[in-house]
Amino acid sequence: MQDAAYLPILMGQLPIAVLGASGYAGAESLRLLAGHPEAEVVVAAGGRAAGQRVGAIAPHLSALADLPIGELDPGAVIDRAEVALLALPHEESARLAPVLLEGGVRVIDLSGAFRLPAEDYPAWYGFAHPAPAWLGKAVYGLPELFREQIVGAELVANPGCYPTAAALALAPLVRAGLVGAGGIVIDAKSGISGAGRTPTDATHFAAADGSIRPYAAGGAHRHTPEIERAIGAAAGGAVSVSFVPHLVPATRGLVATCFARASAGLTTGAALAVLSEAYAGAPFVRVLPAGSLPDSKRTTGANAVEIGAAIDARTGTAVVVAALDNLVKGAAGQAVQNLNLMMGYAETAGLEAMAVYP
Amino acid sequence: MQDAAYLPILMGQLPIAVLGASGYAGAESLRLLAGHPEAEVVVAAGGRAAGQRVGAIAPHLSALADLPIGELDPGAVIDRAEVALLALPHEESARLAPVLLEGGVRVIDLSGAFRLPAEDYPAWYGFAHPAPAWLGKAVYGLPELFREQIVGAELVANPGCYPTAAALALAPLVRAGLVGAGGIVIDAKSGISGAGRTPTDATHFAAADGSIRPYAAGGAHRHTPEIERAIGAAAGGAVSVSFVPHLVPATRGLVATCFARASAGLTTGAALAVLSEAYAGAPFVRVLPAGSLPDSKRTTGANAVEIGAAIDARTGTAVVVAALDNLVKGAAGQAVQNLNLMMGYAETAGLEAMAVYP
Amino acid sequence: MQDAAYLPILMGQLPIAVLGASGYAGAESLRLLAGHPEAEVVVAAGGRAAGQRVGAIAPHLSALADLPIGELDPGAVIDRAEVALLALPHEESARLAPVLLEGGVRVIDLSGAFRLPAEDYPAWYGFAHPAPAWLGKAVYGLPELFREQIVGAELVANPGCYPTAAALALAPLVRAGLVGAGGIVIDAKSGISGAGRTPTDATHFAAADGSIRPYAAGGAHRHTPEIERAIGAAAGGAVSVSFVPHLVPATRGLVATCFARASAGLTTGAALAVLSEAYAGAPFVRVLPAGSLPDSKRTTGANAVEIGAAIDARTGTAVVVAALDNLVKGAAGQAVQNLNLMMGYAETAGLEAMAVYP
Amino acid sequence: MQDAAYLPILMGQLPIAVLGASGYAGAESLRLLAGHPEAEVVVAAGGRAAGQRVGAIAPHLSALADLPIGELDPGAVIDRAEVALLALPHEESARLAPVLLEGGVRVIDLSGAFRLPAEDYPAWYGFAHPAPAWLGKAVYGLPELFREQIVGAELVANPGCYPTAAALALAPLVRAGLVGAGGIVIDAKSGISGAGRTPTDATHFAAADGSIRPYAAGGAHRHTPEIERAIGAAAGGAVSVSFVPHLVPATRGLVATCFARASAGLTTGAALAVLSEAYAGAPFVRVLPAGSLPDSKRTTGANAVEIGAAIDARTGTAVVVAALDNLVKGAAGQAVQNLNLMMGYAETAGLEAMAVYP
Repeated sequence: MQDAAYLPILMGQLPIAVLGASGYAGAESLRLLAGHPEAEVVVAAGGRAAGQRVGAIAPHLSALADLPIGELDPGAVIDRAEVALLALPHEESARLAPVLLEGGVRVIDLSGAFRLPAEDYPAWYGFAHPAPAWLGKAVYGLPELFREQIVGAELVANPGCYPTAAALALAPLVRAGLVGAGGIVIDAKSGISGAGRTPTDATHFAAADGSIRPYAAGGAHRHTPEIERAIGAAAGGAVSVSFVPHLVPATRGLVATCFARASAGLTTGAALAVLSEAYAGAPFVRVLPAGSLPDSKRTTGANAVEIGAAIDARTGTAVVVAALDNLVKGAAGQAVQNLNLMMGYAETAGLEAMAVYP
Repeated sequence: MQDAAYLPILMGQLPIAVLGASGYAGAESLRLLAGHPEAEVVVAAGGRAAGQRVGAIAPHLSALADLPIGELDPGAVIDRAEVALLALPHEESARLAPVLLEGGVRVIDLSGAFRLPAEDYPAWYGFAHPAPAWLGKAVYGLPELFREQIVGAELVANPGCYPTAAALALAPLVRAGLVGAGGIVIDAKSGISGAGRTPTDATHFAAADGSIRPYAAGGAHRHTPEIERAIGAAAGGAVSVSFVPHLVPATRGLVATCFARASAGLTTGAALAVLSEAYAGAPFVRVLPAGSLPDSKRTTGANAVEIGAAIDARTGTAVVVAALDNLVKGAAGQAVQNLNLMMGYAETAGLEAMAVYP
Repeated sequence: MQDAAYLPILMGQLPIAVLGASGYAGAESLRLLAGHPEAEVVVAAGGRAAGQRVGAIAPHLSALADLPIGELDPGAVIDRAEVALLALPHEESARLAPVLLEGGVRVIDLSGAFRLPAEDYPAWYGFAHPAPAWLGKAVYGLPELFREQIVGAELVANPGCYPTAAALALAPLVRAGLVGAGGIVIDAKSGISGAGRTPTDATHFAAADGSIRPYAAGGAHRHTPEIERAIGAAAGGAVSVSFVPHLVPATRGLVATCFARASAGLTTGAALAVLSEAYAGAPFVRVLPAGSLPDSKRTTGANAVEIGAAIDARTGTAVVVAALDNLVKGAAGQAVQNLNLMMGYAETAGLEAMAVYP
Repeated sequence: MQDAAYLPILMGQLPIAVLGASGYAGAESLRLLAGHPEAEVVVAAGGRAAGQRVGAIAPHLSALADLPIGELDPGAVIDRAEVALLALPHEESARLAPVLLEGGVRVIDLSGAFRLPAEDYPAWYGFAHPAPAWLGKAVYGLPELFREQIVGAELVANPGCYPTAAALALAPLVRAGLVGAGGIVIDAKSGISGAGRTPTDATHFAAADGSIRPYAAGGAHRHTPEIERAIGAAAGGAVSVSFVPHLVPATRGLVATCFARASAGLTTGAALAVLSEAYAGAPFVRVLPAGSLPDSKRTTGANAVEIGAAIDARTGTAVVVAALDNLVKGAAGQAVQNLNLMMGYAETAGLEAMAVYP
């Protein structure tokens, strides 16, 4: 019996649920999945928008105009979807994901709920993790560093936007021993969409336009331990990072400028060669030639990462910079990339679009 | 006999020349001097605009609408002005300033022509300095650190925008031995006006809007030695800095995020106390309380600097951030502040305006 | 006895209250009054910020850092202030102003509460006017058109931002019979600060950045009757206007592009001559020469208006454009200008600052 | 023999030349054609970039990284391509198109060279048209209004950005007699990319950011006669338009706000019904429901048009608004749509991507 609140499922398409569809990451997931050759969104749920069709709240998603947005109903997700993308608040995700998983739905979680060890949640996220067993099974979904673990995974923790940029910039060089694992400084700049869709004083256009400002300085941002874990896991050792994020007046875009101690004699060319080799098979990473540096604008709307490097020989500092679109490679695009790997699709399925520039 | 190309000089006002009036720093100097109670612009010169009145090329400078803009004529400057503000290309400034000085005109130079030792010019500026003797007499015009040297000076080297922010953030802490002088990382973000008025591919709105991008990474920016010298001179010792600037999509505004090794046990409160004490008599510096961080937007149009700090105790890193308007405290406002000190005026004369916010 | 919640009143300064200090127009009033040579803010009140000092919520207003922000207490205003600027919601203003006036406080009201006849309030503002008698005594505070009525007024209705621009552009030409009073089209564009400080979906940076969009089309905006009244009163006859406002991605700035039927043979030069003559004694209006058109950016932070005109002889259309900063000449600056006229100060007192450009 | 300067042509793909590839419209054509299922760019030429590969000048066009950009060589175009997209200066296009056409290459011209009658070129474009015979054969490529003429055409004049928006907004209502054909006012707002890629004082970020400003007022813009012709041809009669464009601080996006006399009794619902029916088969047009108005941001990167309407019954004015991305539906996307119609492909081929929002 067909539930009238849902659209019929197309034959042969993977049925997907997008939960938290009214936020930026959820809406971006809808946009990308609408163009995916193998998948179809069969459930979309999002608090503020529940009860409306996509066309009413997001007219630009024209291909999905008739998709109804419902209340979040785990039973319906289990009945209808094979994979669920969760773009929900951290604690809500931590509670919901196990329910879906136990109902046989694979989960790609875009929150921070499955990225750290259980003991870190009280300090960094303010709650005791409700499902430490599932936490142990979660795979960190940064495909360029952990591709093999993602293939076939049941539960993927989709990385944060800052950790994605920082780990892609640094992991190959730390792993190769070309830069030091201690005393790393990461200064990041993000567009305002990274602050989420809820309107606040800080996200008001009049406050953000023309404003360059740091936040959560002094090691207070919860992406700090995630960055250290991601680089450490990829490089095989402990890493120490001092991380300060900033908001700058762009809608999308994120740049992580990473400073690390360069090994003796390291040249820009050698650093770039290691990065190029590390990402030789990675379809979404562009390692720039010496003398070129990343520009976040060249990634707008695309699942792309630009990486550049320059060695400051005078001070022995390696500067490695990664730029990406925080809503795509930093969130929804990476989730689709993880979906592709989990399901055995082409890694680029649904992600072929190049950046909209200028 | 009154030269028809100039306006009459008001009785009792200090006659000033602004050379390079068509660039951003020159035009900002005109704006600020128009409201100065003691000074009057009697010569304005600027290549592109020569032959026109200010009202024709900058209608917003309504109080100066009738001021003629001439070709740069050193003789006329010497005849008419007591002080000259030079907002010219570096090498042109290096050649012109001595002529004016020898003609009895005091000089505030906004270029980089008098900020480094003579031996550094070939490498960092691409020319051999033509007037090393005057270089030796130049005073570095960062009033909050070198106020006493500026009083009565003949030649003031007005600091660069990045060095102003970086030195104000770090000098008191380095001087107090609370942060290490080596291994300092400075990541700076500037609005596009910092790239100058000449239109280029990079300053096109369509290229800069939505773009976050580093440039001159790897120690290549010529403000690097200036930053090291400024902090070193104020703190009494050698300093080593790795500096990477970025352009972000704002017109004005500059943030320098500085990372240094914190001494054992240094707290945010202690760091802020030292900064507050250092700037107790500085009318333009706002040291923010713990938990607050600077926002460049709160300095737009004003000669203000905001400084905040946070100690990352886990990694032993002191993060100190300074924000300012690159065209005011980073250029023209600082020049007027230097003028005030040189001439014995109130330090805030002509600089009382608060930021235009939002 | 000194009330500890207030600062002492300076001898010889006009004591002013700013009510609604936490909104954009209120904060801008504080900024301008801080530099006013004759006035001093002795009461500041604003719901969200009550109980804090200005320095805590608006660090950029450095000269007012110690001013306490209180709850709105009419008795305290009557006790302490001679003039009150009301930057409050319309209906709240309509109820409060009579209380203050009857207590002997002159009022400049920045809301729409005193701009229309009583019978228009239910339809355009959604409430029955509580004080129609005071409404009859209110003077419309557009100094360039109604200067003589404002001098000495007790209650000034400070005009809306759109009506200010539209009426200054059109009134002299309608009055001179050079353009038709019927069939006028006014297409206006405003920066986002015009939408107020409360964060909403529409004012979120990510929604407004890159967005050009009309609102309240079809004659639905409540500035429509105000525009018709203002032009009609200045020109002496009924006027009919079709008005559509738009939001564009700027913080400040407003442009009203006005289309009216040109009288036979009207030239651009003749239209500009009439405008120039009308504003010959108006210190804040710049009528641009033929071939130049206004740019809102040249008014940022200043109480300036730029007006330009071009006659489309082929279609018989006069195009007259006015640009201003919606928070200054469109709100707080105009309020200070009205204050100056009411009190007999120089019209430009506190308003000499030129635009911050670029 | 394979010319080393070109890439091999894929079997079964339509070989296309993009001439003027270094400008915004040319680069956007490359972006869209890279994702086109039937076409392949085999020649790219553009003055500034000649001699480089696409990857070097536009790294974001990753799928075309190896495509060489050459000097404009008509012989090579004739040898290799079946269709050429010309994104060249007007007069250059007027001279080149006939050469290509006579060599058997179909042409889609994005300049203004084939949009007006020959006698209009001296006045509006400043040159005598060199190929009036071809002008007579050119089809105006606005598919929603002239679809049948485009099918199979040899030479398509791709419309200007402003005429596309204005004609789509008004033509169905003029044709139906619901709004008057005389006295139409069109006030348009465009993002800065509409001013072209060449850096100028006006397109400098610092000048354009925060700037709202009209240009070419008084009927001076060359899109004026094109708008009148397009609406007139679609509606069957002469049309008179007063048109004023503005630049606002967005990179992409264009809104045309159109004011026309409404026929007696015309309601918003009736106007929208006519528009909806007119565009029932148009895959790229979204007619919004009553109470909704277009937002240019919802078209960014997509070949979409949003149209909304509101009748101002009080003044008898119909307000119809169209919003689009000036580089897509206003230029390159429309060119690809025309290509699809000319060649018999699906109208949406290569144009399925939805807007990148926010």
